[in-house]
Amino acid sequence: MKPSHIEHIGIAVKSLEEAIPYYEHLLGTTCYAIEEVKDQRVKTAFFKIGQTKIELLESTDPEGPVGKFIEKKGEGIHHIAFAVNGLEASLEEAKAAGIKLIDEKPRKGAEGMHIAFLHPKSTFGVLTELCEDKNSKI
Amino acid sequence: MKPSHIEHIGIAVKSLEEAIPYYEHLLGTTCYAIEEVKDQRVKTAFFKIGQTKIELLESTDPEGPVGKFIEKKGEGIHHIAFAVNGLEASLEEAKAAGIKLIDEKPRKGAEGMHIAFLHPKSTFGVLTELCEDKNSKI
Repeated sequence: MKPSHIEHIGIAVKSLEEAIPYYEHLLGTTCYAIEEVKDQRVKTAFFKIGQTKIELLESTDPEGPVGKFIEKKGEGIHHIAFAVNGLEASLEEAKAAGIKLIDEKPRKGAEGMHIAFLHPKSTFGVLTELCEDKNSKI
Repeated sequence: MKPSHIEHIGIAVKSLEEAIPYYEHLLGTTCYAIEEVKDQRVKTAFFKIGQTKIELLESTDPEGPVGKFIEKKGEGIHHIAFAVNGLEASLEEAKAAGIKLIDEKPRKGAEGMHIAFLHPKSTFGVLTELCEDKNSKI
């Protein structure tokens, strides 16, 4: 596995409406997209900084993964996503190395990306996403 | 404020010795530096991925900031550091915008960087570092 870069960092917030102006100020750039990902029960807001995106996550359901995260840990950094070329092969490689997977197979994430999560129990507490943009070479 | 990129992501781990082989596998690259930062009571290990570094942090003192973090929250993502050009001016700007600062003035961090932290209370729960490499244009 050799990710090319950090594709995005996911940050759990209680309210996009409140957090977006702060991030626009901090990053000196405007939020370029807001998208609901029903499967994950979140609304997302995206910013670009260098090679990486900041993805703010607002839960749309207290029982969803981000709702539960905020209830347990409060607002804060939720996950890191690494851009890989060949997501299925990367998952096989991770599994072969004894890393526990949340997603055995890729699924659709925000921005049409193909994504899969590794389990924090195998990754020293870091919820880790591998993702691939099937529409562009990475 | 307009950071150019994410300079590094700090990840708190109990043991560098245990975490380094995992990150070498995940990132497909070797740890290029290990450095003790006495001021922060941590030993750090660095990896490069694209524009960004992964900085693993092992506490050298249970009463230090990373020791306390792990005790309270467990291993996981500790902070995000944004590369800025003009750290002092960026701190002034943050303060003027009502953002609470942990460091009113820059101090020395790992790799000879000048660094300062913003307070998570003002940043939606994300411990946020601004940093500047005085030895290179960023």
